[in-house]
Amino acid sequence: MSRTIRLAVIPGDGIGPEVVAEAVKVLDEVAPSAGLTIEKTQFSLGATRFLSTGDVLTDDDLASISSHDAILLGAVGGVPGDPRLANANIERGLLLKLRFTLDHYVNLRPTTIYPGVDSPLSNPGEVDFVVVREGTEGPYVGNGGAIRVGTPHEIANEVSINTAYGVERVVRFAFEIAQSRPAKKLTLVHKTNVLTFAGGIWRRLVDTVGAEYPEVAVDYLHVDAATIFLVTDPARFDVIVTDNLFGDILTDLAGAISGGIGLAASGNINPDGAFPSMFEPVHGSAPDIAGKQIADPTAAILSVALLLDHLGVPDAAGTVRDAVTADIATRQADRPRTTSAVGDAIRDAVAASLAR
Amino acid sequence: MSRTIRLAVIPGDGIGPEVVAEAVKVLDEVAPSAGLTIEKTQFSLGATRFLSTGDVLTDDDLASISSHDAILLGAVGGVPGDPRLANANIERGLLLKLRFTLDHYVNLRPTTIYPGVDSPLSNPGEVDFVVVREGTEGPYVGNGGAIRVGTPHEIANEVSINTAYGVERVVRFAFEIAQSRPAKKLTLVHKTNVLTFAGGIWRRLVDTVGAEYPEVAVDYLHVDAATIFLVTDPARFDVIVTDNLFGDILTDLAGAISGGIGLAASGNINPDGAFPSMFEPVHGSAPDIAGKQIADPTAAILSVALLLDHLGVPDAAGTVRDAVTADIATRQADRPRTTSAVGDAIRDAVAASLAR
Ligand SMILES: CC(C)[C@H](C(=O)O)[C@@H](O)C(=O)O
Ligand SMILES: CC(C)[C@H](C(=O)O)[C@@H](O)C(=O)O
Repeated sequence: MSRTIRLAVIPGDGIGPEVVAEAVKVLDEVAPSAGLTIEKTQFSLGATRFLSTGDVLTDDDLASISSHDAILLGAVGGVPGDPRLANANIERGLLLKLRFTLDHYVNLRPTTIYPGVDSPLSNPGEVDFVVVREGTEGPYVGNGGAIRVGTPHEIANEVSINTAYGVERVVRFAFEIAQSRPAKKLTLVHKTNVLTFAGGIWRRLVDTVGAEYPEVAVDYLHVDAATIFLVTDPARFDVIVTDNLFGDILTDLAGAISGGIGLAASGNINPDGAFPSMFEPVHGSAPDIAGKQIADPTAAILSVALLLDHLGVPDAAGTVRDAVTADIATRQADRPRTTSAVGDAIRDAVAASLAR
Repeated sequence: MSRTIRLAVIPGDGIGPEVVAEAVKVLDEVAPSAGLTIEKTQFSLGATRFLSTGDVLTDDDLASISSHDAILLGAVGGVPGDPRLANANIERGLLLKLRFTLDHYVNLRPTTIYPGVDSPLSNPGEVDFVVVREGTEGPYVGNGGAIRVGTPHEIANEVSINTAYGVERVVRFAFEIAQSRPAKKLTLVHKTNVLTFAGGIWRRLVDTVGAEYPEVAVDYLHVDAATIFLVTDPARFDVIVTDNLFGDILTDLAGAISGGIGLAASGNINPDGAFPSMFEPVHGSAPDIAGKQIADPTAAILSVALLLDHLGVPDAAGTVRDAVTADIATRQADRPRTTSAVGDAIRDAVAASLAR
């Protein structure tokens, strides 16, 4: 019996379409083995669309995307400094609007140093952790303003909003993950010594929710100290839970130490299932290398693995990850392959593994 | 002719007194050569003082400290989790109160990878940059609040306040430094794509002030991308200017890649001279290793070099830095020295260099 998954595909800008094409290739290969039929709808959104229509994301787009079961996104954003995009704000108007409207309160970002990968750290150790980044609150809410703009008397404010409702649910999700992992360790990262109000609510809720997970060892790090450990002892981490902004910073750093954000996948998840969850590489649209078939599609392909986990077919997710791991181990810096050659190789490895 | 400098010395908690003792040793050695007489007043402030008196920083302390020409601080903060300190908030009540009241709007944090130092990066390159961190605004202002605390309806906010007055002056300071350096490059780090109001004021003022410094090349990085470059290509940086919170994060990371925050010095500077500037190592009080004479006093000693720069005696600052550089080059991980032995060695190197 086959289950039909209606997938909204947003290739986006720059290298987005190239890497998404490879992700879809791999998804189409593995899906039947998991009893899934993937029905895709393409959405043309991002800087390219804005430049041709002046729209970033209409209510119609949003309604249509919402009616899907899940979303696969490449990357959005035009050429930095393009004057025609000066007022577009693709990030707030598209990417963050999707995350907020679709209540993606968990932004899941695993970090593994794959065998054979070149880390900038000389001695990283065995790195395998996951950052659970809050996705709908904190300094990202867009609650700010400015007066006397452009004058010597300008004042510009940004408000970080943190609610018990919002923090509790993501903290609970993080404890669930920690509980399911061998190391069973959760690290809260914040800046409680300075941001005493926001830090206070996070600390209290980690304590309260943590009481329900006695097997999980909890610790706490200030965000500045966390960046130190990410380069001096990243193997110490298991599950990190943190707010939207700290999570943004830590996961780019985590991507860098694990061999580059060309390998970093993410899931913007609405665990309640009220809205479709969205899977995307952590990297951006990299317009400077777009269209040259030199982008690494691995992060997009690993985002498919997260999608498969989310769809409840972990074996299929594992097949994809194993194929990626095997492919990475054979990579040679002096023998670059095209984007589609990498996708083909991983697709073929998936096919071979399914045939066994 | 000798100039008398009235120095407020705040050894603080944990390893603070140990490292400050070495910093003072070196300062006393080099000062006469620069025509300085250092007149020290000791202030007992921090967790230890709080535990004995219940005070963090009184108005009298503040008035007395303010009447000095400069401040040397070790580190403050008690044992994490000490229940007797639960309501002390030494960070906000002491360290940040000093920085804010004394209008330390420039927090200067240089990063150099000294020859012989063990960086966690396998190939860091030639690293020598300085972070100019804003010190009196941004998310650090303490302008936040919470309602329904501890209930499922709690809401906790933090407001980041950014003023043209505050941003312009620190940006100008950063351009002055960039202008004086060989590479003449300034990188603004912020998160303009998300924090559009705060990011907007920073971007505009970097543009406006930058127009007065046509020789300085300006670029911009989002904070998340900046962390990536700090581990993949730290040599690209020359001067970084950024807000209080991003500066906190970036400078701990910068300390880590350059061989540990045991080497990272900082100056909290009021360039107008209306208030005394304060020099301190970036590291904390490390109560777990306090009193054992195993703390590295190098960061405190390098803070003395920043103090000497600030006092307008760059030759004396250079003598201290050269002595530190020479000492670091001879360090052997398997032959640890005591805190005071390191201080003695650097003091002796200073003396030898002055005798030449
Ligand atoms: C593009 C930007 C708005 C986004 C973020 O800050 O969340 C990106 O950096 C990410 O991490 O997905
Ligand atoms: C102790 C803390 C308040 C402080 C800060 O956040 O500024 C410290 O981390 C620093 O960088 O000097």
